[in-house]
Parts: sequence; C-alpha cells; structure tokens
Amino acid sequence: MSLKDIINNNVTHWISGEGPDNEIVLSSRIRLARNIEDEPYPNQASKEEKQSVSKRVIEAISSQKQLKLHYINLADMPELERDLLVEKHLISPVHAREGYEKGVFLDDNERISVMINEEDHIRIQVLTPGLQLDETWELASELDDLLERKLDFAFSEKWGYLSSCPTNVGTGLRASVMVHLPALSLTNNIGKMLTAVSKLGLTVRGIYGEGSESNGSIYQISNQVTLGHSERDIIDNLNSVSKQIIGQEKQARQYLLQEKESEVIDRIRRSFGILNFAYKISSDEAMKLISNVKLGIDMGIIDNVDKKVLSELMVLTRPAHIQKINGKELSISERDIKRSELIQTRLKM
Amino acid sequence: MSLKDIINNNVTHWISGEGPDNEIVLSSRIRLARNIEDEPYPNQASKEEKQSVSKRVIEAISSQKQLKLHYINLADMPELERDLLVEKHLISPVHAREGYEKGVFLDDNERISVMINEEDHIRIQVLTPGLQLDETWELASELDDLLERKLDFAFSEKWGYLSSCPTNVGTGLRASVMVHLPALSLTNNIGKMLTAVSKLGLTVRGIYGEGSESNGSIYQISNQVTLGHSERDIIDNLNSVSKQIIGQEKQARQYLLQEKESEVIDRIRRSFGILNFAYKISSDEAMKLISNVKLGIDMGIIDNVDKKVLSELMVLTRPAHIQKINGKELSISERDIKRSELIQTRLKM
Repeated sequence: MSLKDIINNNVTHWISGEGPDNEIVLSSRIRLARNIEDEPYPNQASKEEKQSVSKRVIEAISSQKQLKLHYINLADMPELERDLLVEKHLISPVHAREGYEKGVFLDDNERISVMINEEDHIRIQVLTPGLQLDETWELASELDDLLERKLDFAFSEKWGYLSSCPTNVGTGLRASVMVHLPALSLTNNIGKMLTAVSKLGLTVRGIYGEGSESNGSIYQISNQVTLGHSERDIIDNLNSVSKQIIGQEKQARQYLLQEKESEVIDRIRRSFGILNFAYKISSDEAMKLISNVKLGIDMGIIDNVDKKVLSELMVLTRPAHIQKINGKELSISERDIKRSELIQTRLKM
Repeated sequence: MSLKDIINNNVTHWISGEGPDNEIVLSSRIRLARNIEDEPYPNQASKEEKQSVSKRVIEAISSQKQLKLHYINLADMPELERDLLVEKHLISPVHAREGYEKGVFLDDNERISVMINEEDHIRIQVLTPGLQLDETWELASELDDLLERKLDFAFSEKWGYLSSCPTNVGTGLRASVMVHLPALSLTNNIGKMLTAVSKLGLTVRGIYGEGSESNGSIYQISNQVTLGHSERDIIDNLNSVSKQIIGQEKQARQYLLQEKESEVIDRIRRSFGILNFAYKISSDEAMKLISNVKLGIDMGIIDNVDKKVLSELMVLTRPAHIQKINGKELSISERDIKRSELIQTRLKM
C-alpha cells in the first residue's frame, strides 16, 4: 500500500485535524467498559468461553441496523495490520497481542470501535476530532443502549457496571482528550499545569498510552476513577478542565508571540526545514518537529501547509504505518530513513 | 545596494568557487612586503612622510601601462565599505582602521590588491580561486618587477628585502592557501594534520585571519618565515603540502561515504534545510552550515545548487556585507535575521 493509497483510504476521522478547538485539542474519546452477565471475564475465561462471548456480541451488533459496523477477527489479521489499528488508537496495545477470540467492530470512518475480549468482554470506544466530548458521549451512549437491548450487562445496583479491573467499575466510562500544549512546554508551565490537573482527579499520559513518554507536547487527559461519579459529572469535569487548559495554552502562545517572537519563529521554521530535508528522522524527533510545525501553522507562522497534513503525519510516521506503506518489515534505522522520505513526500503532495 | 546588485557587481574572482582543486582549495594567495629605501616604516613615519610614500607609489603604479589598477584612498571611504574590502580579503583588518595616507590599488576583477602604508610601505597581494600558487606567484612577481623599475626597494645583500617586522624580512613573501577540510574535521583527523603541517614550517589560521577562530572547517595555511628560503622553495613547499592535504581530505571524504554514509547525508541535508528555513542565523553558524552544504555539493549529495553560490555566501554573509546589502548599520540580532533572509533569497535566485 503506497503513501497515496494510505492517505486516500485514510478514513480515520480523528486525525483529520478538524473539530472544535482543533488548534489545541486533537481528539476527544469516550470509552465504556461492559461485560456480559454470567460469562467469566476474559482473563479468567477458557477459549470456548471467549468464543461464546465473541459470538454473542457479534450477533448483537449484527442484528441492529442503526449503525453500520464491520467486524475484524484479529486472529486473521497480520501483526503489522493490528499494529496499524493500535497507532490509529482503534484498539489497545494489549488487544493487538496474540490471544483467543479477540475482535473489533469499526464503522466506516473509524470513529466507533468496539473491542471484544479485551480486558472486558466489550469496550465501546468513540473517537472524534477536536473538543466534542458531549457529541462523542452521545454516540457512545447510543451504541451502549443498542447493545444493552440485546445483551445482559453485568451490573450491580450498588456498584454500577462491573468490570474485570476495579478502576473501571461504576460507570465503566473513561473520557479523554488529547491536547497539544507546545507553548505551555516552551514557557516551562507544563509541569504546574499537569500537577493542577492531577489534583482534579484526572490522569495525564503521553500520546501513545499509559507506558509511553509524553511526546511532541501532546498529552492525553482522562478521568481517573469511574466509580462514585455520574457520566455527566465525569464529562462536564473533563470539559471544563479542557477549556481551562485551552485558555492557558492560548495565553502562553500569546506570550510567546509578544515576548519571544523571533525565537519561536526560528524554532518553528528550523523544525520545518529539518522535516523537509533531513535524511533520517527518529520517531521521537519526528513527533517533536511535527509538534513545532503544527504550532507554527496554528500561530500563522507557517501558512503554506494544510494543518490536516501535520495531524495525519503524527500517525503516518509511527513504525507500523511506515512499514505498511513500504510493504515490508524494516529495521529501526531503515525506518528512520523511510520516515523522512514519507514526511517529505507528504509535505510536497 | 541590493543583494542582486552586490552579486551582479561582485567581481571578486577568488570567491567564484572556480580554479583547480576547487572542491577543497578555495583560494591561493601571494603577498609581498616591500618598503622604499630611505623612507621610514609606516609605524615610525609622520603624516607627511606617509604622504610622500603614498605619492611615490601612486606615481609608480600610474606610470605603468601593463596592469590596469584603480586607486582607493581609504580615508575617503566609509568604514562599512572598508570592512567590505576586509571581508573580501582585499585589505587587512589593520589597514581598514583609521590612519593617515592609507590606500589600496585594485584591478578590475579584484585579483590584485596593492596596499599602501599598511605595516610596510607596499603590500602586493594576488588572490586567485583554487590551487594555483605558481600562476598567482607569477602575477605577483610581475607586479613586483614593474614597481621595482620605478622605486628603490629597501634591500640588503645579506638579509634580502627589509621590512618593518622581522618575520617579513628576506623574500618578504607570504604564500597561502585557503582550504576547506570538513571531512578531516568530521573524522577527527584535523588536529593530527594541523600538527604535521606546523612541523613543516607552515602556519595555520582560520578563514578570517590571525586572530579569528578556524570556522566552517576552513583553514588558511601559509609559510611561517620568509628568511633563508627562496621564493621557489616557499611556493614549492606549500604546493606540495597542499597536495598532500587535498589527498587526505579526499580520502576522508571517501571514508565517510563508505562508512558513515547515512550520517553524512543526514548532516548535510539538515544543514541545507536549516539554511533554507531558519529565521535567524549567526555568523558562526552560517559558516558551519555553508561548509556542510558545500561539502554536500562537492560530494554530489546536493545537486540542485551551484557551488559558486555557496562560495559567495561565505563572504556575503559576513557582517559588513549584510549591512551593505541592507543599506544601514544593524545590531547583531538584526543581522542574524537579515543573514538568513539573504541566504534564502540567494538560494532561491
């Protein structure tokens, strides 16, 4: 699959660089953890028990007509293709690993993904560009209702939805936003901001999940607990915190333009120059450079590049995407060379 | 004067990037120190005595018809214009400073310069592109003969030509080559090479003279003493050392291509990217980046830029040139911004 094919066929809505407040918020995500009553959790289930869960969920989704979803049996999918789904945030890294009866439903523009037999029987995810937690939640909730009409979810009057992991018991809801905060980083205000966010019951991670380093000034902010708060509370809290973060990042950008104009313009333009000309670029460096150039576009310093291109590149430059585009497995140093080729081809397109 | 004017009117032959072995030798220079008998050296002379020297040299040069030379009285020239001549290596920094009866004769393509009342009464200089010490020497010698027919030079049978400074007594000859040795730098062989050169009675300096740091891997190599060696010996020695240095630099470039190909390509292409996109570039950084890109052109890694452009930029990006092109004095930080504008305009031209 060529770069052109990947881009032309790239239906993943969230990396379009669109949506409200897209100069700071890359995406909004809602995830619901659900389990079927009387079936053991995946980590305790036999192959046959998982098969039963899988079958029941597939039937439930197939029998509804409101949402058009396609099923992928992950066992039938090569590892590289599974990794592509991870890089697009459509399945979790753990779901991409070998295992029985793992599957995922996706819709046409990859906003919706429903993982089967991940940590829980069902993980409903809706992922949209920009800050639109309410709309994202509505779609996730609609999907939840559809499934609940067909399946009996494990639910306790006292605790709420039951889950294989205690942190997901209750609403089973994890709401998150992925934010791009380069100006708060550059002005050394990011630490203070992240500490404040933690005190509000929210968790901060890097762009590629729990284990990954925060990268390219991109942070995922999500609620820490799902128990003891209503869905509405969780979403309202994250929405309000997101708006404060947007305000602070905007202020920091304003400050940079007023007080450090030439340094910021220089940093952004150098990053653009390196992206356009380097012979090899590591994954980490690509993220930093893309982050700087995205800031440049958002601040009007770079004006001949579509911001969609930069948002896409954040995903296209990940290892599985590069290997997929080049049609084969590549060593790290081969990838670094192919990564810069890809970036330069894309910037010229 | 605009950049276009400067480039179109730039007659300085040595920065053309031409001449034999121009991928390593930027220029060859011959300089002869001469003094008029019975006139005190400039550092001991009164204004009137200097005036007398100046008058005699001007008459001598004006009365010959073989070489067409134009006289500039440096006292009539604004400081910025004098600094331009320094940056083009046509007068020495000390000659550009305030003083009485300082002057210079230049020919049409600025190969020849004859300084009057510098450290000595007369400093004849011939500066040509590439490695052509013999041709350069012949022209300098011809000019020396022309002058000697009109003027009595201070000369002792025992010591040779007399000079205000003991290091110039003898032949009064300083022969030098300006060499670009990025691969010897990159492979950490430059120190060893420079030590060896010193042991052969040669001196190594940076591109901008005795006080300046070696910059952009460009070195001036010249004979240390003029006494006790014939002109022929001095030139042959420098020629032979230059050829050895060329050989070593070529070997180092070959080694880099074989053993460090992707690192070298990456470094060169990043330098090109930064030159093309940075918002501000210091004088030192410009030299390093230009040096890398020149290496890239000479090694065939960058193929869409004329090497003449890079050679010119080494001089055009110096402070006086930038201020001249912008038509006014500029602070260091203003120059850094104008320097990158100039480089980017020139690379696009």
